[in-house]
Amino acid sequence: MSLLSGTFARGGAATAVSDDAWFRALLAVEAALARAAARTGLVPTTAADAVTAACAHPERLDLATVVARAADAGNPVPPLVRVLQDAVGERDAVAVHVGATSQDVLDTALLLMARDAIAAVDADLAAAAETVAGLARTHRDDVLPGRTLLQQALPTTFGLKAAGWLAGLDGARLRLAEVVAELPVQYGGAVGTLAASGGAGVALRAALAEELQLTSTAVPWFTVRLPVADLAGALGAAAGVVATVAVDVVLLAQTEVAEVAEVGEGPAAQRRGGSSAMPHKRNPVAAISARACARRAPGLVATLLSAMEQEHERAAGAWHSEWPTLTELLTTVGSAASWLAESLRGLRPDAARMAATAAAAAEGPLAGALAEALTPTLGTGAAHDAAAAAVREARDTGRPLAEVVAARTDLDVRAVLAAGRPDVGEAGAQVDAALAEHAALTEGRP
Amino acid sequence: MSLLSGTFARGGAATAVSDDAWFRALLAVEAALARAAARTGLVPTTAADAVTAACAHPERLDLATVVARAADAGNPVPPLVRVLQDAVGERDAVAVHVGATSQDVLDTALLLMARDAIAAVDADLAAAAETVAGLARTHRDDVLPGRTLLQQALPTTFGLKAAGWLAGLDGARLRLAEVVAELPVQYGGAVGTLAASGGAGVALRAALAEELQLTSTAVPWFTVRLPVADLAGALGAAAGVVATVAVDVVLLAQTEVAEVAEVGEGPAAQRRGGSSAMPHKRNPVAAISARACARRAPGLVATLLSAMEQEHERAAGAWHSEWPTLTELLTTVGSAASWLAESLRGLRPDAARMAATAAAAAEGPLAGALAEALTPTLGTGAAHDAAAAAVREARDTGRPLAEVVAARTDLDVRAVLAAGRPDVGEAGAQVDAALAEHAALTEGRP
Amino acid sequence: MSLLSGTFARGGAATAVSDDAWFRALLAVEAALARAAARTGLVPTTAADAVTAACAHPERLDLATVVARAADAGNPVPPLVRVLQDAVGERDAVAVHVGATSQDVLDTALLLMARDAIAAVDADLAAAAETVAGLARTHRDDVLPGRTLLQQALPTTFGLKAAGWLAGLDGARLRLAEVVAELPVQYGGAVGTLAASGGAGVALRAALAEELQLTSTAVPWFTVRLPVADLAGALGAAAGVVATVAVDVVLLAQTEVAEVAEVGEGPAAQRRGGSSAMPHKRNPVAAISARACARRAPGLVATLLSAMEQEHERAAGAWHSEWPTLTELLTTVGSAASWLAESLRGLRPDAARMAATAAAAAEGPLAGALAEALTPTLGTGAAHDAAAAAVREARDTGRPLAEVVAARTDLDVRAVLAAGRPDVGEAGAQVDAALAEHAALTEGRP
Amino acid sequence: MSLLSGTFARGGAATAVSDDAWFRALLAVEAALARAAARTGLVPTTAADAVTAACAHPERLDLATVVARAADAGNPVPPLVRVLQDAVGERDAVAVHVGATSQDVLDTALLLMARDAIAAVDADLAAAAETVAGLARTHRDDVLPGRTLLQQALPTTFGLKAAGWLAGLDGARLRLAEVVAELPVQYGGAVGTLAASGGAGVALRAALAEELQLTSTAVPWFTVRLPVADLAGALGAAAGVVATVAVDVVLLAQTEVAEVAEVGEGPAAQRRGGSSAMPHKRNPVAAISARACARRAPGLVATLLSAMEQEHERAAGAWHSEWPTLTELLTTVGSAASWLAESLRGLRPDAARMAATAAAAAEGPLAGALAEALTPTLGTGAAHDAAAAAVREARDTGRPLAEVVAARTDLDVRAVLAAGRPDVGEAGAQVDAALAEHAALTEGRP
Repeated sequence: MSLLSGTFARGGAATAVSDDAWFRALLAVEAALARAAARTGLVPTTAADAVTAACAHPERLDLATVVARAADAGNPVPPLVRVLQDAVGERDAVAVHVGATSQDVLDTALLLMARDAIAAVDADLAAAAETVAGLARTHRDDVLPGRTLLQQALPTTFGLKAAGWLAGLDGARLRLAEVVAELPVQYGGAVGTLAASGGAGVALRAALAEELQLTSTAVPWFTVRLPVADLAGALGAAAGVVATVAVDVVLLAQTEVAEVAEVGEGPAAQRRGGSSAMPHKRNPVAAISARACARRAPGLVATLLSAMEQEHERAAGAWHSEWPTLTELLTTVGSAASWLAESLRGLRPDAARMAATAAAAAEGPLAGALAEALTPTLGTGAAHDAAAAAVREARDTGRPLAEVVAARTDLDVRAVLAAGRPDVGEAGAQVDAALAEHAALTEGRP
Repeated sequence: MSLLSGTFARGGAATAVSDDAWFRALLAVEAALARAAARTGLVPTTAADAVTAACAHPERLDLATVVARAADAGNPVPPLVRVLQDAVGERDAVAVHVGATSQDVLDTALLLMARDAIAAVDADLAAAAETVAGLARTHRDDVLPGRTLLQQALPTTFGLKAAGWLAGLDGARLRLAEVVAELPVQYGGAVGTLAASGGAGVALRAALAEELQLTSTAVPWFTVRLPVADLAGALGAAAGVVATVAVDVVLLAQTEVAEVAEVGEGPAAQRRGGSSAMPHKRNPVAAISARACARRAPGLVATLLSAMEQEHERAAGAWHSEWPTLTELLTTVGSAASWLAESLRGLRPDAARMAATAAAAAEGPLAGALAEALTPTLGTGAAHDAAAAAVREARDTGRPLAEVVAARTDLDVRAVLAAGRPDVGEAGAQVDAALAEHAALTEGRP
Repeated sequence: MSLLSGTFARGGAATAVSDDAWFRALLAVEAALARAAARTGLVPTTAADAVTAACAHPERLDLATVVARAADAGNPVPPLVRVLQDAVGERDAVAVHVGATSQDVLDTALLLMARDAIAAVDADLAAAAETVAGLARTHRDDVLPGRTLLQQALPTTFGLKAAGWLAGLDGARLRLAEVVAELPVQYGGAVGTLAASGGAGVALRAALAEELQLTSTAVPWFTVRLPVADLAGALGAAAGVVATVAVDVVLLAQTEVAEVAEVGEGPAAQRRGGSSAMPHKRNPVAAISARACARRAPGLVATLLSAMEQEHERAAGAWHSEWPTLTELLTTVGSAASWLAESLRGLRPDAARMAATAAAAAEGPLAGALAEALTPTLGTGAAHDAAAAAVREARDTGRPLAEVVAARTDLDVRAVLAAGRPDVGEAGAQVDAALAEHAALTEGRP
Repeated sequence: MSLLSGTFARGGAATAVSDDAWFRALLAVEAALARAAARTGLVPTTAADAVTAACAHPERLDLATVVARAADAGNPVPPLVRVLQDAVGERDAVAVHVGATSQDVLDTALLLMARDAIAAVDADLAAAAETVAGLARTHRDDVLPGRTLLQQALPTTFGLKAAGWLAGLDGARLRLAEVVAELPVQYGGAVGTLAASGGAGVALRAALAEELQLTSTAVPWFTVRLPVADLAGALGAAAGVVATVAVDVVLLAQTEVAEVAEVGEGPAAQRRGGSSAMPHKRNPVAAISARACARRAPGLVATLLSAMEQEHERAAGAWHSEWPTLTELLTTVGSAASWLAESLRGLRPDAARMAATAAAAAEGPLAGALAEALTPTLGTGAAHDAAAAAVREARDTGRPLAEVVAARTDLDVRAVLAAGRPDVGEAGAQVDAALAEHAALTEGRP
């Protein structure tokens, strides 16, 4: 573990793109390729079995040599193939890397790693969603001021706020699932013609896809990088959802707002958020860390999209730039999701505080009611202006708006003051609908 | 038309996000909202009809005032609502902007514009795909050197290259279509509670979605910007596909390669690509312009993804930053697609030139055949090294590789030389499969 | 003016990159080139005078044709040269575009426009800085809570906060000035050899630089885009400074914080920030708009940096992508600076409110004093823990921390409580230093 | 070393931002802070000496605990301070972290690491520049076709091409040096007031800057991130220069162009660039890797610029996001520079091949000469058209352009054909000027 990894490589996604994971994935592809070649009759089953067996024990392979030679070879596959050939011996080497080019193995392995990493991301997003669903249920009707452009506006409920988060988290999960379900195998040989696959290349590609539970394609996608773009897009969207929930937590936890606090359990959580210089401070470290991780995503997505311009049958640089960029994108989105789940798990909403603030904020609806009451007499525009003038008068004189309204003689004051009480409209019904959608989604995915 | 718009705002997408289009879209939303409010019984049908009628004639509205006041209001909707209220008169003003907040109208209008713009993008991508399908059919078996890392490798066919482009173009279209089909209406009122919708807000949202043929959601998505992220991702992916086709055209059109030329029709195309200083030059201007437009996309996508971190019930800046960014992304991707369609329409592949180059490149397979022939004697690794040594010898002495091979006495020279002839494997079958997939896709979308 | 330009193309920078500005800049370069050619003896002075005269009256030139043909030519210069040649007639056409290639003229014109646009940006940043300097002076000693990680921490002064903004604004201006001072002329002819400059190309380049008050270079920078990267970097930095000031304004203006308000003058400012649905709301529209504009910069910077990879003697797409991207970057940074100046001009800090909040926040220093007082007895670590425990006790029991501290018998309670009063250290001295630096900078740049 | 680090973390920059480097830098700041505090009389010299001594031996400190607790603390400094306090003992702990906040130490340490990493980047850029200067000298007059928009245009020299690269590399170095020279210390205490610095904070800041050879500032730059933006801009520009040189190498090394080859020395270089499937291929792996590394920069720069929007006295996420992003930017730019130096070191230009291609390309100048010769008779426009027609005729009939020209009777054919010979103008003089500038720069920086 490195100094920054506790913050930026938290959660299972980081593990899923580690060096160990790289080797496991590359060997999984080579093993599956050997089996697929045997199934299509290109190599003896015994040879394929030998390759599968060798690939199952990375610890017995000379991977140090692979690491040492990967850069000079341009990618790790050529030295890995040589190591694998040596491991299985001359006779069974016919089943190693059948008809393949380095990119076939590397691209497919990268997608396998992405699939594993996204499983970890999804687990954390699912945990966050469950917690948020609980918050929406518990606080379905707890009133707090809605805030637009960071100004208190009309009242809403914490339940509706949580329902919005829930829709975002579920939406992000859905997009990731759709992309993962379509990830395709790469197999084309040196330039994509399958010329080294003994006439069985198309069949072999299908068998390989089946072995690895990936989809197949009509032609190789060597330089048409839609699968990478799909991953980038869905991961960028997930990061954005995490960020928007996290910024809400950070803003609600402000000292002056204090409608939520991030309160974990156990000694680590106790320590977390404490300040060295200021023992009285309690920082929402998990939400802050989620935000920090999520902010790294858009730049990485842009790098991957820029890298889509790839030349001829294999790109001279753009392809390579995907490897560290995609793995880091997976890592940082995974870390963001993990922190968000942690933040939400320890979130303590303060409904009483919310209610008190909302009451103080009731002047908003009151101004609206005043405008409405004046409309029949003054017309829509002038009524609006008159209400704004009343608000200014209250502010300038330091009196409550209700007092200013009560002093008016040009309207039914009692009705207006009544209409000025908090009204959260169909907030509750919308929360219920969001929870129902969430339940349907969750049931659909055991 | 401005100085740069011929290059960067070509095609229908630019028109679909023009000021005129903004007004049409905003008014379409207001009109649909009035009708939906009538359908849910909130306002008289006559009032809704009046609003619809007013919205149908933007030229009669005082839109100059809207333009003048939009910035101070924070967005164009408040002054537009005022203008519309004035236009329909006091009585029917009840049907204007029912229960809505500015963001309801602006977000929905933005998605309507995106849908229109993407229809234009799709038309150009479809045209490009048709042309490419034709190229794949015509040149199914025309051999040219496959090039990896910008070095000639083994032979492939122009048909297979075109089939790869086709898969990319069709894939990009598919993603755009999926996103467009899911674009949701925005409707929640001031803070999302539907408090000003007279208890019929949820129903009104559904009716509004139906009016505009958008989807509906359980809760507003004011600060959970997945629809924008989806658009960004799919447009970024489309730009990447355009770029990768365009860079291939540019590279194949290099003077030294000359396997394709961009040859248009009519006087404009004649002029195009000519150089003021160098009358002998013929630049592939359309492909170059496609590339230039496509390169602008990733940065815009990153801006949109960064803007997903939105605060509370309405963001203070991030939301606003979406408007010019998304419209420009639509414009530049549309322009890229339009240029690519134009480039491909005028593309003249030179199959004879390809064949000649491929013949000269046959040394590649020959080296492979040599390695293979030596494997039984030397083992895989050493055979590979020996073949590489022969290639070096040929290069260093300036003799053809065939001559170096022919001089060997340690193997069946004749068989090796035979095996060294171009072999494009299953290129043809893959082209056929890609064309079949394209046909299925095209038929499925009349 | 278009619908969004009031928000996103505010200020002089937008004008400096308009179509009119493009033509003026391109013609300024052609005129200067003619004069420089005359000075180096390549063309008759009379011909150069004719070209200068023609360039001084764009309204007499057939610029519609230039607009119409720019895209097909690949850039606007070839048709402009033709129009200019026609305008001056056959005899004086020898002084048009002497020895130049399109990129010579376009690159130089683009930098001229950037220089003009940055002058406008700088004027707005300077105005913002002056206002901020005034705030720092006026509120030098007004205490408010310092906030770290959006939690109240120890007290600071509004003067010090403003001094930080000031250092940022001045720093951004300094960087822009440095870049502008080094902007180089472009001149190399078709491929950079100056082959069409009659042996006087190097001299002509120097003369051209002098005419336009640009610097010169040893070789053309056709595909080595450091000047563009420098502009991108300095503009991106300026946007970041604007954003960080703007986010502070937005956060301080939150209803719950209310330590500043954005209060403009005149009817437009009165209207600004009002809400259609909520007449009681007052949004800090200028700061929000500044933030929205600034957020667009990083993606545009990334596009320009990505475009630095340019091929051979002229890039096939990357070069072109700079034109709309750089002009938009200038526009959005200019708009951000203009909005920020406007926001600050109308900013009304509420020192009384700040003081009240700071008093309530005095618990922070008190906890610190407690920790310090316990250190001799308990050691640094345990003392810190004990103070944290006291804070928790106060929070859990709802009593003021002072009461909890006063109940202790293990230390000199009076001394601790005294030490707990607000201490803003060397805030004032730092404000003075920042103002002095600002004064020095301002005097140095009349 | 990890699987990808051979490609993406090559060179000294990666080492300069390793975990070891982090600890060394953090401890260097703490040690300098103790000494500065002693110099300003805040702590006893003996205590400062004890801290310095402890910081000199990271291997004796319990850094595992720091790693374990960094994430929960929000950053690594709080646990490091605790470990350091424990290490020096209660008495000397007064000299640990005097008046500082975590961000003081972390920001300063990050800039120290950046300075070290940039020294490594600069060494590689300097080596690349030296090699390129040698190429410019050696090939000063070797003619090759200039290529614009990837089409052969008029002739230039390899010397001039190399001189362009040289100007770029030197320019990038200059920018990095300017930024490094201005890197400022961070020191302000909890919220920037220096309240915990016993009234000597301003003096201590100056002393600290002196200890670390950094600059000082009038106020802390906690949330005004110009130093980070400066680093980002200069590193992004350096990456762009590396990319533009690398893409030229890749394009010149194309099989069809073959004007340069990447030929290293020693067994690693022998292996490098070989293809597993195609022994005859020789890929320019170093240039490709340089390009791959450089392409990662723009997205990282955008992330850093986006992170400039920082709140109040310490940002809740944006600050944190800088740490992995800046260190990675340093790593990838360092790796790019290292690969480019390697590529250039092994670059073998083929002057004979260049000359042959240029001769074949002489048709370009010939067309120009034809146009010029026809101008007196036909006028500029029509002459240009006539020359273009002649080029078309040659292309359509497969005859050399010279033959088509020779057949004309409307001009002095001999003079035109003579004028059609390659003319590289002032290429040589420009090379000399660039070399002189390089020499001046190099001498100025021993």
